[in-house]
Amino acid sequence: MRALVLEEKHRLSLREIDLPLDLGPRDVKIAIHTVGICGSDVHYYTHGRIGPFVVEAPMVLGHEAAGTVVEVGAQVKSLKPGDRVCMEPGIPDPQSKASKLGLYNVDPAVTFWATPPIHGCLTPHVIHPEAYTYKLPDHVSFAEGAMVEPFAIGMQAATRAKIVPGDVCAVIGAGPIGIMVALAALAGGASRVYISDLVAEKLAIAGRYDGLIPVNIRERGLAATVAAETEGWGADVVFEASGSPKAYQGLFDTVRPGGCVVFVGMPVEPVAFDIVAAQAKEVRMETVFRYANVYDRAINLIASGKVDLEPLVTGTYPFEKSVEAFERAASANPNDVKLQIVLGA
Amino acid sequence: MRALVLEEKHRLSLREIDLPLDLGPRDVKIAIHTVGICGSDVHYYTHGRIGPFVVEAPMVLGHEAAGTVVEVGAQVKSLKPGDRVCMEPGIPDPQSKASKLGLYNVDPAVTFWATPPIHGCLTPHVIHPEAYTYKLPDHVSFAEGAMVEPFAIGMQAATRAKIVPGDVCAVIGAGPIGIMVALAALAGGASRVYISDLVAEKLAIAGRYDGLIPVNIRERGLAATVAAETEGWGADVVFEASGSPKAYQGLFDTVRPGGCVVFVGMPVEPVAFDIVAAQAKEVRMETVFRYANVYDRAINLIASGKVDLEPLVTGTYPFEKSVEAFERAASANPNDVKLQIVLGA
Amino acid sequence: MRALVLEEKHRLSLREIDLPLDLGPRDVKIAIHTVGICGSDVHYYTHGRIGPFVVEAPMVLGHEAAGTVVEVGAQVKSLKPGDRVCMEPGIPDPQSKASKLGLYNVDPAVTFWATPPIHGCLTPHVIHPEAYTYKLPDHVSFAEGAMVEPFAIGMQAATRAKIVPGDVCAVIGAGPIGIMVALAALAGGASRVYISDLVAEKLAIAGRYDGLIPVNIRERGLAATVAAETEGWGADVVFEASGSPKAYQGLFDTVRPGGCVVFVGMPVEPVAFDIVAAQAKEVRMETVFRYANVYDRAINLIASGKVDLEPLVTGTYPFEKSVEAFERAASANPNDVKLQIVLGA
Amino acid sequence: MRALVLEEKHRLSLREIDLPLDLGPRDVKIAIHTVGICGSDVHYYTHGRIGPFVVEAPMVLGHEAAGTVVEVGAQVKSLKPGDRVCMEPGIPDPQSKASKLGLYNVDPAVTFWATPPIHGCLTPHVIHPEAYTYKLPDHVSFAEGAMVEPFAIGMQAATRAKIVPGDVCAVIGAGPIGIMVALAALAGGASRVYISDLVAEKLAIAGRYDGLIPVNIRERGLAATVAAETEGWGADVVFEASGSPKAYQGLFDTVRPGGCVVFVGMPVEPVAFDIVAAQAKEVRMETVFRYANVYDRAINLIASGKVDLEPLVTGTYPFEKSVEAFERAASANPNDVKLQIVLGA
Repeated sequence: MRALVLEEKHRLSLREIDLPLDLGPRDVKIAIHTVGICGSDVHYYTHGRIGPFVVEAPMVLGHEAAGTVVEVGAQVKSLKPGDRVCMEPGIPDPQSKASKLGLYNVDPAVTFWATPPIHGCLTPHVIHPEAYTYKLPDHVSFAEGAMVEPFAIGMQAATRAKIVPGDVCAVIGAGPIGIMVALAALAGGASRVYISDLVAEKLAIAGRYDGLIPVNIRERGLAATVAAETEGWGADVVFEASGSPKAYQGLFDTVRPGGCVVFVGMPVEPVAFDIVAAQAKEVRMETVFRYANVYDRAINLIASGKVDLEPLVTGTYPFEKSVEAFERAASANPNDVKLQIVLGA
Repeated sequence: MRALVLEEKHRLSLREIDLPLDLGPRDVKIAIHTVGICGSDVHYYTHGRIGPFVVEAPMVLGHEAAGTVVEVGAQVKSLKPGDRVCMEPGIPDPQSKASKLGLYNVDPAVTFWATPPIHGCLTPHVIHPEAYTYKLPDHVSFAEGAMVEPFAIGMQAATRAKIVPGDVCAVIGAGPIGIMVALAALAGGASRVYISDLVAEKLAIAGRYDGLIPVNIRERGLAATVAAETEGWGADVVFEASGSPKAYQGLFDTVRPGGCVVFVGMPVEPVAFDIVAAQAKEVRMETVFRYANVYDRAINLIASGKVDLEPLVTGTYPFEKSVEAFERAASANPNDVKLQIVLGA
Repeated sequence: MRALVLEEKHRLSLREIDLPLDLGPRDVKIAIHTVGICGSDVHYYTHGRIGPFVVEAPMVLGHEAAGTVVEVGAQVKSLKPGDRVCMEPGIPDPQSKASKLGLYNVDPAVTFWATPPIHGCLTPHVIHPEAYTYKLPDHVSFAEGAMVEPFAIGMQAATRAKIVPGDVCAVIGAGPIGIMVALAALAGGASRVYISDLVAEKLAIAGRYDGLIPVNIRERGLAATVAAETEGWGADVVFEASGSPKAYQGLFDTVRPGGCVVFVGMPVEPVAFDIVAAQAKEVRMETVFRYANVYDRAINLIASGKVDLEPLVTGTYPFEKSVEAFERAASANPNDVKLQIVLGA
Repeated sequence: MRALVLEEKHRLSLREIDLPLDLGPRDVKIAIHTVGICGSDVHYYTHGRIGPFVVEAPMVLGHEAAGTVVEVGAQVKSLKPGDRVCMEPGIPDPQSKASKLGLYNVDPAVTFWATPPIHGCLTPHVIHPEAYTYKLPDHVSFAEGAMVEPFAIGMQAATRAKIVPGDVCAVIGAGPIGIMVALAALAGGASRVYISDLVAEKLAIAGRYDGLIPVNIRERGLAATVAAETEGWGADVVFEASGSPKAYQGLFDTVRPGGCVVFVGMPVEPVAFDIVAAQAKEVRMETVFRYANVYDRAINLIASGKVDLEPLVTGTYPFEKSVEAFERAASANPNDVKLQIVLGA
């Protein structure tokens, strides 16, 4: 099969590679249509590793995908050939202790597309378990379907935050994940969401959405902005989505007494953390690791029109130009949110 | 002071009545601008009682109010004359056991406007504690301000449901409260809300909102409709907002395994209840009693535009025509959602 | 294989029966040592059905079991021959929607020992999935191991109640399940548990445990007793474990404002239910259906000595006297809590 | 009135001081019987400050108190002269936004005994609001009553942890607060609690309690110990109660996937914090600030015998020897847990 292969750090090729295509009784075979490029794909390309995950052999990239079912295993009931679908890229052991608890995302046995040594989905066909393959309504496009994966991270963050209807939220960082978190929080019950960054272009993109209020921290701090607009009380929920060590300084100034901080961004090193400031407000802190049980809810929000992700697709490339797409993604243009590669007709 | 007084069952008069106007140190004095007519006001008018609460002496009606602060007590900090406000009509003992727990709505000591023997607010001026008086943003109208109270019931229901972002919800009953619940659920995180009734006019009003899906149960059952659109899984949350005994038959057919049912409607008599059907799905059931800690979040949702209540005001009367307004309300026109009386300039 | 077979209503035989013993790669083979007799086993014996589950063909009884692993499948990691274990009798589809959510007990596809048409475990050997087989610490006896199943129901009830440390609880019904619920609530954080019944013998058994306070409702009502000992406030959590329609009358008098009622007992018919009384206190209501994710926590509590179930085993029979054991169980002696059948050496 | 006064850092005197004794309508007057010495009292004595709170004028010490009501205000209902009581030392504004939410401990307006500039209770009589004064059952001693305050911190930690019945817990630090947390966790539902320290004497005291398992980290790490005894899974809840910066290294190795870490200890400086390690297990983190709504539940657990605090009182001094008591407390004898001063007869 043809696939976009990361041969090693800095070297991509679109070439034939031998991939298993055994269809188990509860699996489906999918013709991939659209695959989004994620920051992690780019990071493997530019650095050859993410933390403990090191690219030691050629690996197919890609994990944000939508496509069409072309074949189903003997015991598959919920899907049939022709169904348009998107896929959760992580596959746990469904009988593990974590999975039994409903926490299959933190099952130590999980395998995940394009996380070494597991191949990704930038290839015309993949086999996937029915249980992690989700049907798309007719009016949801493949482009949107391939956006469900990054949006799912926002959904996981909004879910763990336990947003109460009408809460005021704040998001630190207006990169792709920050925007996903902000949109999920807004659709998930927030009345308004402050979103901060120091890059004007990113804030401009966020600010096009009703209910997202961009805050350029070169001009005014997030905590001061939120305090001024909440009579000094603070935000009910603060999402840290930048991963920047600076974001942790004064972090708890933005949240209200008894509020919640959700850690989405992943700082490279341990950060200096003011535990006592969190305690003084008795802050609850949540962390997220990918997602579990959010795909169907994410699709529902896209299908109902409450969340519109299409404006965030800022570039589309045919499969044959995948390497070019990755080079643009690696250039980190602040006007880009999401680039996608189209394999289907 | 002039006020709309319920002299006894079936007899209203707009007349002078002696009402206390002592301004305590933490109280504010408010010039009432707009008061909505609630089903409970009408019920006292037509039946002279609601359950154990009996009208035994002339009582001023009205508890859905917005107005302008005209004077503040010596220790008031958050409000000043000229502030446009709406008011929570229930006043608890802030030092009671329930209040300390944050559950001030179920404090047995609570007093509530227009619940015998407490006078309501259909009168030009009232005294109210600062703590239960909420500032309205400039662009929120008095009409909207007076809608915060009924919307707060929807907010309380949506809050106790613990909606998870993207949940599919269903509301039984498309009366004023059913619509409030549906709008709160939608703004509070639902992806879509099925709302059922057997009166076409009510469903038509609900159906004007994006995301509310009217279901006329004369044509198709709610459970069947939801099952068909969720691959047989059911709604994550079902709100019972009709109070009709029939709604309890087959109630648990509509909810998914592990889902939630919220009881908002108040049936007159005990209802026949299929506990085993709830157990088979391990359903969580929540009840609501008025509201606590939702006014500020309700105002935030109205102010941000996520919730638009103005279309629901289907008639407005000047104070002098209050009795006429009540007569129309008592006629139960299915095209009416909310009638309001305007006292202010 | 020899087994205790319910041929039809009222007719038991201990005889040879053909049972499948295929060991899958993630299964274990267990030599059954001890099996407790459950009220549901007895009910199938005496009535031939429980609700929609009808005994239409001979069925092996028994689902409360402990034993010893004698063989393991090729992929089994956590267990080995010689391990002493107890087993969760329900087996879900681990890839179903409910299972993915951690709610595998409400998976519609679940199969459950001794629930028609599934055979139970009153037979010398069974095959069971590793994932639902739990190791017993050395100092936990087989008798205790076979008590984990009924105790798990109490654990599920205590878990869903969300007991807060030091809560005052009440349990309606001092039968085997009521006592299990009371012990789980006490170990699970309650400071004391009132347990009511009208049979003195049952209350005497419950009253032997420190922290369980028996209330004979022939002498004084439960609500009155709890009110008197909580300054009129009520119990934080009330568990209904009798299934008696009478228990629903005045049920909400016992619980505090903002408290919780958990429905464990299964009334035969729909019951008359006072929704408004629940609403006036804004009561949360939980239901339980068997259990999920509680076996390991149940075993921990037994192993640590916080919960002592052995005094509740009031009779033990050898396998050959199984029919006699069932006859005693069917006689409903109020001094009996749990009878067990021993197959092992 | 005579009182134990901290004149300035390192200088205590037992002398007359003018303290207000105005009895408001909802206040009670209490004859103090027993006052425990808290680490914070000692810290003010030895350092003259705790963080932003600086002793700038003579201040009466003491906030862990029990005594007897001697007079009640005109509106007091729940207490009468002669009642034996203990008192919550923090008094919030009951009408504040935080208090309305039930989070009165994080109300910015709270005043707290012996936190500058507020006087403490080491004096024969105090005035206190009825709402924060709790009746002691007859069989609960004054010594136990004065232990409710430090135990309340453990209760707050155990409450926010949302312990599920049978959870395995771990506590870092076996000082007085660590032991309180461990006992609250155990009574609050844990099956067993590992408690770590590097001081053998402290561990010996903890180890006297059934269910507390001392871990001397000079011999073996906490994470390794817990992993070995949970088949590598980890503790459901980890409480950090040492405040030592070292405790934050590898902190998340001890907790299970999807588990909870509660921060009770207050490190002097910001600590280096491995956010990514928390995310990889999707850990929830809770913080505690004093307590709210736990006194009655704490008293219930002491009264029922589930929690026995008396062995932790390792020294008792008469009021006249208060300075001597403080000197011993300041000596930090590892065999001491709690010293108390007795004023009453």
